[in-house]
Amino acid sequence: MSEPASNNPQQPPILYLDDLAVGQRFTAGPHLMTEERIKSFAAEFDPQPFHLDDEAAQATIFRGLAASGWHTAAVAIKLMVESDLRLSTGLIGFGGELTWPKPTRPGDLLRLEAEILEIAPSRSKPQQGVVTIRNVVLNQADEPVYIFTAKILAFRQR
Amino acid sequence: MSEPASNNPQQPPILYLDDLAVGQRFTAGPHLMTEERIKSFAAEFDPQPFHLDDEAAQATIFRGLAASGWHTAAVAIKLMVESDLRLSTGLIGFGGELTWPKPTRPGDLLRLEAEILEIAPSRSKPQQGVVTIRNVVLNQADEPVYIFTAKILAFRQR
Repeated sequence: MSEPASNNPQQPPILYLDDLAVGQRFTAGPHLMTEERIKSFAAEFDPQPFHLDDEAAQATIFRGLAASGWHTAAVAIKLMVESDLRLSTGLIGFGGELTWPKPTRPGDLLRLEAEILEIAPSRSKPQQGVVTIRNVVLNQADEPVYIFTAKILAFRQR
Repeated sequence: MSEPASNNPQQPPILYLDDLAVGQRFTAGPHLMTEERIKSFAAEFDPQPFHLDDEAAQATIFRGLAASGWHTAAVAIKLMVESDLRLSTGLIGFGGELTWPKPTRPGDLLRLEAEILEIAPSRSKPQQGVVTIRNVVLNQADEPVYIFTAKILAFRQR
């Protein structure tokens, strides 16, 4: 408690390709979505009425202020980085498929549930492989608001 | 010039589902990626060494500071909103597939080239349809740094 620089002495171990298995799960959160940050993120990156102003948003398909889907996506990578999936090279993604099943609202508490779906060792580069991981972000009502099925890079221990 | 509130009098028209066609293209940009914003975005959402510190990044697969892929994605939606693809309901995405072919670097000037790939009128909801649009973000060397093939919502004119 008196050493803020090491307030997480039980940091999870670094993981390598051979430490990973299909079905392995990782979690993180919660992260609070504030109205203020929803609006300021939208003002910078996604300035559309339903992300900027609650009254204007009432008249739209969202029926009230909703976070930019890219704000939710940015919070998702934050939760992924905070999770126990600590790869030796960090989280480096090639890409993936994403969907937003529901809007994210002010006051939502978001958490991450991630699961490894597939592990494909590289044929040409024996030291590395591609891990397919489904990242589901849920709100406080356990409703998925964002699903990103990512392909990420992992290395074997040298 | 004297009326800043209307400094774009030739705003492009609102588009409806029937105004769209496969092969239609939209562009926007450029947007300058500054080292300062790359670092501050990463500090908030993607705090990994290769997004935070140039020296630490030299020792990683990126070989120098690179923007979070989610920062590039956020800039991409900014460029999409700025483009002439002005739908009546705004840009509302169901999701899509994304990839980052190259890192985004400090000083990069990003621009958007988008093209409609498919238009699928809804069978159950005759007033609306789903438009598949490929959004390619390129840097100043014309290299794609982000490709997002999105499914977005469009409505017919009532």
